[in-house]
Amino acid sequence: MNKSEYTMRPIACIHTDYREKFGIPRQSGLVPSKATITFYPPCVNADYVRGLEQFSHIWLLWYFSEHAGAPLHATVRPPRLGGNTRVGVFASRSPFRPNPIGLSCVSLLSVEMVPETGPVLTVSGADLLDGTPILDIKPYLPYADCIPDAAGGYAEKQKAHLLDVQIPEECENSFSCDSLATVRELLRQDPRPSYQDDPQRIYGLRFADKNIRFRIENNTVYVLEVIRNDP
Amino acid sequence: MNKSEYTMRPIACIHTDYREKFGIPRQSGLVPSKATITFYPPCVNADYVRGLEQFSHIWLLWYFSEHAGAPLHATVRPPRLGGNTRVGVFASRSPFRPNPIGLSCVSLLSVEMVPETGPVLTVSGADLLDGTPILDIKPYLPYADCIPDAAGGYAEKQKAHLLDVQIPEECENSFSCDSLATVRELLRQDPRPSYQDDPQRIYGLRFADKNIRFRIENNTVYVLEVIRNDP
Repeated sequence: MNKSEYTMRPIACIHTDYREKFGIPRQSGLVPSKATITFYPPCVNADYVRGLEQFSHIWLLWYFSEHAGAPLHATVRPPRLGGNTRVGVFASRSPFRPNPIGLSCVSLLSVEMVPETGPVLTVSGADLLDGTPILDIKPYLPYADCIPDAAGGYAEKQKAHLLDVQIPEECENSFSCDSLATVRELLRQDPRPSYQDDPQRIYGLRFADKNIRFRIENNTVYVLEVIRNDP
Repeated sequence: MNKSEYTMRPIACIHTDYREKFGIPRQSGLVPSKATITFYPPCVNADYVRGLEQFSHIWLLWYFSEHAGAPLHATVRPPRLGGNTRVGVFASRSPFRPNPIGLSCVSLLSVEMVPETGPVLTVSGADLLDGTPILDIKPYLPYADCIPDAAGGYAEKQKAHLLDVQIPEECENSFSCDSLATVRELLRQDPRPSYQDDPQRIYGLRFADKNIRFRIENNTVYVLEVIRNDP
């Protein structure tokens, strides 16, 4: 047993439209949802992000705050394997890990300085729950981080599974163009737990201030209604 | 100020030939040095890495143990910018960060089970000091982690700076073929602090049980001698 302990504190917080775990994309970059990042003291200072705007993509290292304290198991059942096959936690990106650090590559859209709050980053492609604490931000370095010929194991074989999405026009009108594109992509990713396949079952996905109700039959998502959430 | 604190503990330890900071490649993957990773309880268990062998590359999240407690500055001077230009810590991969977590992509060569020590991973391309504590291991997922068209900012412009390396035959004979290839690549990366350019200056680079003495003139590294370190 190694007895070393390291204490980490959030440096920033992310503000996303994902208000609950259900429906969050399973990796970063799959859905072009926009999000903003604001900093905590002492990092509320333009100097900390000087030069960051030169990079098109950044890494977010974050704390799986929703899963902290969950009992630890050596193996998990990744959704990509149908939820039936167990792999080691270190062979997965599951949140249930000894040190619950998440790793997400997001596209950096802008870096702005806001007098009251310090730097505000706008990013696209984040797979984080609204309010998730950020531990670190690093530039994405293609010469070190991009491995085009890497073998993606079991995760690779399943990546092509995308659904068709049918949204009635009156439901489409509930969204801005940006939000509609994001919602369509979220649904295409198939948010169901992988062991569920009941065409009658009605799901609700919370996105920003909306609740999107839908069912899935024969690889098609049918949006039924869009309800405005109570604030 | 956010008052949350998270406690992390090492899950594993890496064993590399880098015995001091001088000479360690500035990013992972640049030099094909081999290293092994062994686990601490409770992760000394084959289940934790089940399925990992399917992946060609893995992420190491690690603790910059050498830099813990160093005073924190908002900006750093990356060696790639000649050591004169300051950028924000979050626009760099510097070890001097609020939460000193390192991120390295390494190639996974093998996963072996050793009765006494549990799983042993052999990796290539690590840029970690010998004995560095590992906080997390994740599979590299090309569909989420590989961004071929990412813009690498200031780090990209400087990447082509590689030196010629001249090693006399009697010095070459001090190394195995694998080690010689690694040493050659380490020297090609130019280990000097970027503000130094003195052709008379003799450097010593510790690699495994050897001390490699060399000087650099006109973009060529001249190895002068290889000394065996005291154990």
